[in-house]
Amino acid sequence: MSSAVTTQRAYNFSAGPAVLPVSVLEQVRDEMMCLPGSRCSLLEMSHRDKVFIDILHDAENTVRSLMGISDDYAVLFLQGGAALQFSMIPANLLAGSGKSAAYIQTGVWGKKAIAEAKKEGDVNVVYDAAESNFNHVPGSGDYSVSDDSAYLYFCNNETIQGVQFQDEPACPAGVPLVCDASSDFMHKPVDINKYGLMYACAQKNAGPAGVTVVVIRRDLLDRGSKTLPGYLQYKNHADADSEWNTPPTFAIWVLGKVARWLQDDIGGLEAIEKLNRQKSSLLYDAIDQSGGFYTGHAKPDCRSLMNVTFTLPNDDLQAAFIAEAAANDLVALKGHRSVGGIRASVYNAMPLEGAKALAQLMNDFASKNA
Amino acid sequence: MSSAVTTQRAYNFSAGPAVLPVSVLEQVRDEMMCLPGSRCSLLEMSHRDKVFIDILHDAENTVRSLMGISDDYAVLFLQGGAALQFSMIPANLLAGSGKSAAYIQTGVWGKKAIAEAKKEGDVNVVYDAAESNFNHVPGSGDYSVSDDSAYLYFCNNETIQGVQFQDEPACPAGVPLVCDASSDFMHKPVDINKYGLMYACAQKNAGPAGVTVVVIRRDLLDRGSKTLPGYLQYKNHADADSEWNTPPTFAIWVLGKVARWLQDDIGGLEAIEKLNRQKSSLLYDAIDQSGGFYTGHAKPDCRSLMNVTFTLPNDDLQAAFIAEAAANDLVALKGHRSVGGIRASVYNAMPLEGAKALAQLMNDFASKNA
Repeated sequence: MSSAVTTQRAYNFSAGPAVLPVSVLEQVRDEMMCLPGSRCSLLEMSHRDKVFIDILHDAENTVRSLMGISDDYAVLFLQGGAALQFSMIPANLLAGSGKSAAYIQTGVWGKKAIAEAKKEGDVNVVYDAAESNFNHVPGSGDYSVSDDSAYLYFCNNETIQGVQFQDEPACPAGVPLVCDASSDFMHKPVDINKYGLMYACAQKNAGPAGVTVVVIRRDLLDRGSKTLPGYLQYKNHADADSEWNTPPTFAIWVLGKVARWLQDDIGGLEAIEKLNRQKSSLLYDAIDQSGGFYTGHAKPDCRSLMNVTFTLPNDDLQAAFIAEAAANDLVALKGHRSVGGIRASVYNAMPLEGAKALAQLMNDFASKNA
Repeated sequence: MSSAVTTQRAYNFSAGPAVLPVSVLEQVRDEMMCLPGSRCSLLEMSHRDKVFIDILHDAENTVRSLMGISDDYAVLFLQGGAALQFSMIPANLLAGSGKSAAYIQTGVWGKKAIAEAKKEGDVNVVYDAAESNFNHVPGSGDYSVSDDSAYLYFCNNETIQGVQFQDEPACPAGVPLVCDASSDFMHKPVDINKYGLMYACAQKNAGPAGVTVVVIRRDLLDRGSKTLPGYLQYKNHADADSEWNTPPTFAIWVLGKVARWLQDDIGGLEAIEKLNRQKSSLLYDAIDQSGGFYTGHAKPDCRSLMNVTFTLPNDDLQAAFIAEAAANDLVALKGHRSVGGIRASVYNAMPLEGAKALAQLMNDFASKNA
């Protein structure tokens, strides 16, 4: 914990924007005044400069390499966050198709996506976990999707509720599977070939706010109408290698560094999955072994590896817990108001030591206050 | 020029992303690991954290103070660049209005805006400078705008051609004036009350790539249809103080620092205008006193204070000029292919010393090679 102490840094459990690797921040700091091999800061460099083009390509290629993404897919770096994807996806893949799009609703982010999709075309909510206050995801027998759906949409990890699909939801062959991976992008290996489109705003598990990665199967690029606003057409961005207009150069630079860290320092997606399981298990064990002092929000078989959500017996104890955590360099633990309690986000960049320190505090606090 | 020498930095005449104040870059570097008063990097901080909310408000308030913007206007920080504004403006202010929008075309950026506007409604190009290869802007008697236009749109400074309006174009009372100020935002005092909407992507004159400032008169906020994609409705962003979704936190942070520099270090917009006139005059004088060796692209009465565009007698001399400039720490001077020659961008953050060094080189080079 030396770096936390020497720089006043704490273990930061923010749900997003969220913790980044210390080594990445150090590189950004060290290169801020002048990018190595260049004569200015990255912030001052034309996006058409070969040095930046190389940075962009390296970020793309590192993501491709980590995830095993073939050239059948385009990898785009866009602006506007998940919120703009909520509209771009149906604007490109649903509007004018004469079809209906299937949506699985397992939390707040899926709900927002559905509201935007309804503006663009016919939406069929095939599963809705709202009545359980979003404490689970459906099994394959719990819903059905028509063979001629425009696509099946789901959010892999709902950050507010802390529920996560353990595997891809069942989807008929020929229906593109569309995934919001904003809060768990690259947290474990996936078979990207099962997906038509996967996207993630970077600021939870992959970088800073300001860039959204879209992985889209190339045959889907032509579905968007040319009458769409130009920025909203995936094809424009794919044809121009994410330089249809000035991309968010800084956020792409940092995302590329995070991807490199994941590849070179961590060892890839199998290694990060192992680490993520260790970290979240420490916290879920603290919940399960507290004799009911802590109550987890998510059903055990839907627990998120990224966001661990739980409540304490009452509001006073929750406030005391948050205060004691802060005194121990453990910050940003307050849960979202819709679920309450505590939310500990342990994204890729949260060190194991941070999760250990929080688990220890949970055990100690429960012993003292149960 | 000590800082350029000690860090390998050069005077950077890039058209955008472009030069930033050295003191701003130093602050970003020094605060990268841990934001003062906080326990993490700005990059890792929730956009709902009070520390970030204060940064956002300070950026907004500094821009308001510099430009004299009253509460009759909202100041928004958005993503998607000017390219998304090309669509958002007509989507909000033209579509469904039953009116036509008037556009003045004085360069490449106006042309792109018109192409997007035509997707949203009826467009009337009231002036087109294409036949002159965009070397001028119209006078007030050169075009007319109908009283019932949805708005009158213009680009104040065309970066590629280096032509700039010296004052607001004539516009009938009651027709909102809409301005793309992407390459000269806050380069001199303006009376914002003459405008319905002014916007600027930050990466030329106000900050890094990744954030676009939109100043919009509040009565225009209600014109956008609720059926628009949520991200494209100005009202959503205004109602949520630019936190309708996660804003580009880093770019806003840096933009706020640039605005503070402009206010505290430079002394405001009158002071920066004086400096900008000094810098560009040095270069235009070098053109005018070269005996025809350098040929300016813009007509003298439309010359840009930000982008000085000129050609040399032939391609070999142009290549030699660029090489000699680079050897003298003067970089990113190559003009856009549509105009050719040299483009020296001397935005707000370009120090007077940089313009002096370039003017000296221009004089010396002309003496040797004329």
